[in-house]
Amino acid sequence: MAKIRVGVAGYGTIGQRLADGVAMQEDMELVGIADLAPTLSLQALRENDMIGANGVRYNLYLVDGADPAAFAAKDIPVAGTFEDLCKNVDIMLDSAPGGVGAKNKANYYEKYGVKAIFQGGEKNSVADVFFHGYANYEKGLGADYLKLTSCNTTGLIRTVDCLDRAIGIEKVAITIIRRVADPGDYHRGLTNALQMEKAPTHQAVDLMTIMPHVNATGILVHTPVTHGHIITVLATAKDGKKITKEMALEAFQAHPRIRVVSIDEGFKGNASLFKYARDLGNRRGDMYEIGLWEDSIVESGNDIMYAINIPQESVTIPETIDGIRAAMKMQPTRETATAETNKYLKIGRFK
Amino acid sequence: MAKIRVGVAGYGTIGQRLADGVAMQEDMELVGIADLAPTLSLQALRENDMIGANGVRYNLYLVDGADPAAFAAKDIPVAGTFEDLCKNVDIMLDSAPGGVGAKNKANYYEKYGVKAIFQGGEKNSVADVFFHGYANYEKGLGADYLKLTSCNTTGLIRTVDCLDRAIGIEKVAITIIRRVADPGDYHRGLTNALQMEKAPTHQAVDLMTIMPHVNATGILVHTPVTHGHIITVLATAKDGKKITKEMALEAFQAHPRIRVVSIDEGFKGNASLFKYARDLGNRRGDMYEIGLWEDSIVESGNDIMYAINIPQESVTIPETIDGIRAAMKMQPTRETATAETNKYLKIGRFK
Amino acid sequence: MAKIRVGVAGYGTIGQRLADGVAMQEDMELVGIADLAPTLSLQALRENDMIGANGVRYNLYLVDGADPAAFAAKDIPVAGTFEDLCKNVDIMLDSAPGGVGAKNKANYYEKYGVKAIFQGGEKNSVADVFFHGYANYEKGLGADYLKLTSCNTTGLIRTVDCLDRAIGIEKVAITIIRRVADPGDYHRGLTNALQMEKAPTHQAVDLMTIMPHVNATGILVHTPVTHGHIITVLATAKDGKKITKEMALEAFQAHPRIRVVSIDEGFKGNASLFKYARDLGNRRGDMYEIGLWEDSIVESGNDIMYAINIPQESVTIPETIDGIRAAMKMQPTRETATAETNKYLKIGRFK
Amino acid sequence: MAKIRVGVAGYGTIGQRLADGVAMQEDMELVGIADLAPTLSLQALRENDMIGANGVRYNLYLVDGADPAAFAAKDIPVAGTFEDLCKNVDIMLDSAPGGVGAKNKANYYEKYGVKAIFQGGEKNSVADVFFHGYANYEKGLGADYLKLTSCNTTGLIRTVDCLDRAIGIEKVAITIIRRVADPGDYHRGLTNALQMEKAPTHQAVDLMTIMPHVNATGILVHTPVTHGHIITVLATAKDGKKITKEMALEAFQAHPRIRVVSIDEGFKGNASLFKYARDLGNRRGDMYEIGLWEDSIVESGNDIMYAINIPQESVTIPETIDGIRAAMKMQPTRETATAETNKYLKIGRFK
Repeated sequence: MAKIRVGVAGYGTIGQRLADGVAMQEDMELVGIADLAPTLSLQALRENDMIGANGVRYNLYLVDGADPAAFAAKDIPVAGTFEDLCKNVDIMLDSAPGGVGAKNKANYYEKYGVKAIFQGGEKNSVADVFFHGYANYEKGLGADYLKLTSCNTTGLIRTVDCLDRAIGIEKVAITIIRRVADPGDYHRGLTNALQMEKAPTHQAVDLMTIMPHVNATGILVHTPVTHGHIITVLATAKDGKKITKEMALEAFQAHPRIRVVSIDEGFKGNASLFKYARDLGNRRGDMYEIGLWEDSIVESGNDIMYAINIPQESVTIPETIDGIRAAMKMQPTRETATAETNKYLKIGRFK
Repeated sequence: MAKIRVGVAGYGTIGQRLADGVAMQEDMELVGIADLAPTLSLQALRENDMIGANGVRYNLYLVDGADPAAFAAKDIPVAGTFEDLCKNVDIMLDSAPGGVGAKNKANYYEKYGVKAIFQGGEKNSVADVFFHGYANYEKGLGADYLKLTSCNTTGLIRTVDCLDRAIGIEKVAITIIRRVADPGDYHRGLTNALQMEKAPTHQAVDLMTIMPHVNATGILVHTPVTHGHIITVLATAKDGKKITKEMALEAFQAHPRIRVVSIDEGFKGNASLFKYARDLGNRRGDMYEIGLWEDSIVESGNDIMYAINIPQESVTIPETIDGIRAAMKMQPTRETATAETNKYLKIGRFK
Repeated sequence: MAKIRVGVAGYGTIGQRLADGVAMQEDMELVGIADLAPTLSLQALRENDMIGANGVRYNLYLVDGADPAAFAAKDIPVAGTFEDLCKNVDIMLDSAPGGVGAKNKANYYEKYGVKAIFQGGEKNSVADVFFHGYANYEKGLGADYLKLTSCNTTGLIRTVDCLDRAIGIEKVAITIIRRVADPGDYHRGLTNALQMEKAPTHQAVDLMTIMPHVNATGILVHTPVTHGHIITVLATAKDGKKITKEMALEAFQAHPRIRVVSIDEGFKGNASLFKYARDLGNRRGDMYEIGLWEDSIVESGNDIMYAINIPQESVTIPETIDGIRAAMKMQPTRETATAETNKYLKIGRFK
Repeated sequence: MAKIRVGVAGYGTIGQRLADGVAMQEDMELVGIADLAPTLSLQALRENDMIGANGVRYNLYLVDGADPAAFAAKDIPVAGTFEDLCKNVDIMLDSAPGGVGAKNKANYYEKYGVKAIFQGGEKNSVADVFFHGYANYEKGLGADYLKLTSCNTTGLIRTVDCLDRAIGIEKVAITIIRRVADPGDYHRGLTNALQMEKAPTHQAVDLMTIMPHVNATGILVHTPVTHGHIITVLATAKDGKKITKEMALEAFQAHPRIRVVSIDEGFKGNASLFKYARDLGNRRGDMYEIGLWEDSIVESGNDIMYAINIPQESVTIPETIDGIRAAMKMQPTRETATAETNKYLKIGRFK
């Protein structure tokens, strides 16, 4: 079977990782990446002779408005225009800045019959389906335009969907302890301050869009760290059923994209998980799984409460790859699709 | 009526503020403070000629093991020994390091018939009553030894007790986003990391000791900031009753020690509240009230969720003063006692 | 003698403290303050019934563009317009946002013959004299428009001028370890990052404007903290003269606005000094003196190296008050003027 | 020629990277690593089936006191004892906790005729030569016991030695803006505080041991960040010679282990360099080169001032590999030895 041809629009924090993720899939071909300016990320790619993950060459295409001379000045080779890239792909992973994806769709994707998967920055209306690989894979089957859930929502839904399929969930209340900036960010830091956002937080609202039978709300607080959000979740089962710690733990441990860890073994917080990913030698020090602390799980009456860690830079990559599989009808079910994604990304190896 | 004679053992972060709080009460006399070494806090007091809050002189007594020469070297005047102080007070506020309070009780308080109020660092067994001015004032009436709830628990209980009296509460699940160190601390910082604690967090357990009819649990995460914990609370009413945002808000707004604020008016997080206290010209930049964000209140099915800010250095001071009133039977009821404390501390002036 | 009538334009971080500083001077009258919107700082003032430092009432005047209804909505009393204030003062301390001072000068100060002192945000050209109370007081005598050095430059010059008068200085090279935000700031933080600025840093350039016989350069690095810049200074004496640690220390210890501290006695860093100021009960937890670590002073060949702490919110207040004394010819010399300022601000009490 | 057989004692932050570095050298064989407990780092290695950098298997040996059952419980394969490892290597890279290296030397290295290179935590007396690959390679030739300079000193000396060989240096004064903890550390953080150390800082003293003809002193300030120290250096040439910016820049640009960067191209601070290393796909997100900001270089009279970034986790690896080359007499000169190290570590590729 011919490989699915994939492009990546925008080579920022997410785009780089999408390109890496596609380069790892043996049933996909990374045709190219596209960007506007010779960023440090592109200079790093050039320092590696344009070779990315898995030994794959990342061909660079320039979006409208890019200045070829600026790339030449940095000695970065250019393969063509964004339009050229669009003509040669089946599907585009669009991780351009918020709002640009909608323009790309209008200007190119529709014109060339290119499917697309948008990231969290775009409005929901840009897509036919608001998508999560585990929670609603089948809705994405054959769809032209998908939008991925944001990093927090993606990780959160992994656990709520996991409990829902095992036990049946009716309601969740979450507290997001959000890392305020990515490593390397100089434009959105916070110094010695926690910052409130108005409730309810959008991640709870988004969860309800993906899982409409669940009532969700929550509060988000920004914290001055860079390595991974932490979310506490209080989940209520349907029909007044009690969720025990054992029931929840069993469900979590069976999920390939949830890494159950404990404080006792040394996972003291989000920084421990980042360090562990670096110690694993993972590219960029990334981790695709969310962490879930076994020793955070407590019963609250009939409800269950637990805490998870969201590696914000990389967590949406697997579900985006799942999205390609759905849109291109590569696998018919969530089980078969996520299994393929996981295999190539080496997810669940530790189980 | 003769003023109640009060001593303060330990002039650290809490002890200094207890002394200030007592100095503000016109029906109490701060007989003296006691400490072990000529700390920077005592050097600051000496720089002010031993004059503290409200123009009151803070006479210094030395605890066992203190070296008078060390105080003389810093030119800090000494009024006597801790035993001298014990002989001259009706009640001691003991904010000595954890464990020392129990020794003080055995060595001095019992001997001289001095009542005492211990802070959160002591074991519960040191006291007859685990005390909170609003939640169980009457239990402290005439008691010899009280122990105050810790900073987070004190602020948390203000809100849960407030809802409980207005509506009736059966269950709470909390997430504590804890500031990891006080301003000026160099011995317990955290850098670019969130740190988990094993659940359930002790504050939930402590709440159940004070309010045994409430089921409480929760998760605590340390964050690298210094100015105020933030707690999210999910509260469930008794008998399946629904709590609306309006019901909760009305109750909170009527509580003198809860300052209802909003993001819209500029209270963006814990640092805004610290700045506001400094702008008020409050001594040490302290605030006695907890902050509660109006725009954090959301309904979760029948439950209510909200976020509060705990000014960790000063929040227990009013309830400790209440404890003096209870132990000394200065006022017979929580209403009359807390009203006196509030009046002298200028709490609720903003209402 | 009639008191000098002073106004303060802009009631932000600096403006509040300028008002406090003037309110402490018994030979000055704080006629009023002016601002544009009912900020939290003004709400805090109202919560105190408009009473600020030293029991002085701070009358509020509205600048052009202010909406009186917005102040009424917050129940903040208004005394008049900025123009009204200008008519009633001898001199205005202008701490409005950068650029506004120049407009105020053109629209009001020149019209009503009001002298003015601008803060660091304005361009040098707005003023006749770039001013520092200790380094060039006499230049400000009788001047109409002064501009104060910025916080780092003000503290830095205290020490360089101090050494220069004692020993003679020819060259300094500085490293500014800058706190990136003030307590309460949510708009300019930095998270887990040090940030470089292009060299040479403007503080070195500014020093040369005030002390033209000194060659100065340096590098500035932003750090994610809120409580006080730290500057290391390497100073070279004139004529190849050696500066010993003893010579430097003797000079520093004699300076009223330099507080010589040591790590040994517990001043571990900038946070210790902030804590000490709070323990002193200083309004807003402020300190007017810079800290200088005795155990940071080292000889580098003939040169001397040392580290200082700059309390960024309050350090320029004394020199601004000195500026009033110069502009209004209240005292003829730096010695007499700074002595008056220091007396009312209780600076040097600890010596 | 037979490959040099190398062991690594201690698989912590430095030990892991030493193992990686050796695994990259085609003229060396990593015989094994040794540790005491089944740390998270070793669990990560096992998750990779004990395969480390460059596809090399890292055989694990247990040091005295290790409990084999603890390793078995984590399913981590063990190849033998530390003594076994010692019998099979030519040289040991000792990155055990401070003080353990001296015991290892006494108990094993001397007994089995194993040479060793110690890291900064050991006392200088443990080694025959205090070593830096560029500054004193020849002193290490054939030596049995070397001690490497610490991370800051290693990077600092690269630049001072570089200038010294090009121009001749007589004196340096440094300010170290130190990152206080490594990513993942939970035991030594700092929160919203800068912390002073007594001057002179040991890095300056150490520099003088390696480069005895240079007078060095300096001040160190800890800052709450995790990704790279920044040092400012003021260097004075011999004989009153002036160092221009051009002279310094030319020397720095020619050095393989100095990466000259600029704020203009986007390297805003230490976090940018960490991000760039991650974007490069470097194992663990590490970088071997120090960064040196071109736009930080300024002239101070005849002296030159500049700022460098020290990637603390990885910077000493190349010089340690150089140490193997010296001790084992693999190459006779610094030029030939460092060229081999650089080639295998892919250092200087960007030049």
